[in-house]
Amino acid sequence: MSKSFSIGVDLGGTNLRVAAYGAEGVFLETISLKTRLADGRHAVVSDLCAAIASLLRRYGSERGCAGIGIGSPGPLELPSGIIRNPPNLTGWDGFNLRHAIESTLERPVSIENDANLAALAEQAQGAGKLLGSDSLCMLTMGTGVGSGFILDGKIWHGSSGMGGEAGHIVVDPEGQRCGCGGIGCLEQYASATAIVRMMSESSRTPASALEVAQWAMAGDPVAQAVFHRVGRALAIALTAVVNTLNLPLYVIGGGASDAWELFAPTMFQELLSRSYIYRLTAPNSDPMVEDKAGVASRTQICRARLGSEAGLLGACLYGLQDPLQQANELEMRIG
Amino acid sequence: MSKSFSIGVDLGGTNLRVAAYGAEGVFLETISLKTRLADGRHAVVSDLCAAIASLLRRYGSERGCAGIGIGSPGPLELPSGIIRNPPNLTGWDGFNLRHAIESTLERPVSIENDANLAALAEQAQGAGKLLGSDSLCMLTMGTGVGSGFILDGKIWHGSSGMGGEAGHIVVDPEGQRCGCGGIGCLEQYASATAIVRMMSESSRTPASALEVAQWAMAGDPVAQAVFHRVGRALAIALTAVVNTLNLPLYVIGGGASDAWELFAPTMFQELLSRSYIYRLTAPNSDPMVEDKAGVASRTQICRARLGSEAGLLGACLYGLQDPLQQANELEMRIG
Repeated sequence: MSKSFSIGVDLGGTNLRVAAYGAEGVFLETISLKTRLADGRHAVVSDLCAAIASLLRRYGSERGCAGIGIGSPGPLELPSGIIRNPPNLTGWDGFNLRHAIESTLERPVSIENDANLAALAEQAQGAGKLLGSDSLCMLTMGTGVGSGFILDGKIWHGSSGMGGEAGHIVVDPEGQRCGCGGIGCLEQYASATAIVRMMSESSRTPASALEVAQWAMAGDPVAQAVFHRVGRALAIALTAVVNTLNLPLYVIGGGASDAWELFAPTMFQELLSRSYIYRLTAPNSDPMVEDKAGVASRTQICRARLGSEAGLLGACLYGLQDPLQQANELEMRIG
Repeated sequence: MSKSFSIGVDLGGTNLRVAAYGAEGVFLETISLKTRLADGRHAVVSDLCAAIASLLRRYGSERGCAGIGIGSPGPLELPSGIIRNPPNLTGWDGFNLRHAIESTLERPVSIENDANLAALAEQAQGAGKLLGSDSLCMLTMGTGVGSGFILDGKIWHGSSGMGGEAGHIVVDPEGQRCGCGGIGCLEQYASATAIVRMMSESSRTPASALEVAQWAMAGDPVAQAVFHRVGRALAIALTAVVNTLNLPLYVIGGGASDAWELFAPTMFQELLSRSYIYRLTAPNSDPMVEDKAGVASRTQICRARLGSEAGLLGACLYGLQDPLQQANELEMRIG
């Protein structure tokens, strides 16, 4: 067998996607299912493993399977693979997802936080590849605000695997109560859910974040103010990350990031006034202006390139790596 | 020559300390001078290089000099060694400190942000050694709030060497204007300077942060409230770092951290309510209580162990490493 492939799983609260991915860099096949949350976690694991098994049968005869990457909503404890208090998987707290999958499949899998896998994909194949950057922070504006950090080319897990929750940076210490138990987290001001809530508080109730964006595009000042709040919240959270980590690249994705033109101007303006590291390293928009900072490296903030594909692609790329090596690395780091 | 030694420099806005440090782990000699800021930066570099040269003469005949580590106030652009807008070194903006020292000494030096070197020392010889942790975040509560990050045993520089400024995490988006140009930075609520300012705003004007602490210890409710604000600000900033990086250890040092008993209870209480990652990983104070999280690794927050020695020791430890190797590592990372 000259070619190898991997299998990637993107386990979401709504959709379950399983793909076979060729090492040459193409999706061989994608299986899309609904996540049967109402039928319990074992039903979901059963669907997930059945899809993996069918892909293993179909492609395993002609190619070697390098590994299986599983993207799970967090927080996820690593290396154990136990899910902790997941906001979008009710009743899964304490569930050992790794063990459930491995005992069904009877083979090892690589399990990882879904936001980290999206970040890995953007680094390897998306915005990071474009800019030649091996470190980045990715924020995903969806139902919540997920995030993942790639530092020197590797997913940063933190000491118990629960790193990367930039959606829970405090942006308003006396603000909105968050699902995480905290107060005024970024997620309460920059998620699709938050956009709907902020609009409802100020004016009419929209059907979705997309509708708020449409109203804003049509000139509704209240809807426009909602997106200014989004941009401001992102800037306050990014200030924390830019000033502490000084990463070369910040990638913003997720469905609500489609409203980029509505929130990005406020975000950049607030970042320039709030983060002095950003001020020193912001790209010069005008090439005729002398580069005062003269710094070796710039801070780029841009939209994600891979869209909703990122999580699934990241799982496939993670699967292509040797799972035993990943487990050893994690053991070493986490002890 | 069987033994080697290094030379470390702690360049502060007030004091300039230069030490020779034996590879066996002892200070051989420390030279303490005032930083002659009023006489210009070249006078300071001249004093600094003269002290290094005298130590090189004294110990270089019997030992091999492994390297010279220079700790400088930030922000410091790396690998160039250019100081950028330093709040405590007026007139030094754009000064190439590395070049000034190397051209005088006619040998390479390892230059590094002083807060990063303090963090390195705490990791190698202080709180990190005690807890067996190879990653940590250190906050230094002094005139400002400095910080340094050690990730997997190495100083995290960020893409242009300016990482590690946790003192400029926003803790009050509409709060106090900060020297960095931002608004409501941690530094404005948790530095010795801030403690004096907050006390003056609410009541009598103290001579120092120490005096505010003495008033608080004596039962003054206004002074006590100042330290509650310190604890709250630290908790909001730590929530950002704990939730994004999930590090095993946070070390708080600097002169104002001597008031630990006055601000730490509020800090821990606010952290428990604000950071769900901290809630999941906080050490169990009561060993009889079942360990609900069951996580592999805990989040420890403690006082620094090395006191005002940390920066100088970190410079010496940094000097013990091979400067060319460090430069190559930085070049690789920063490009």
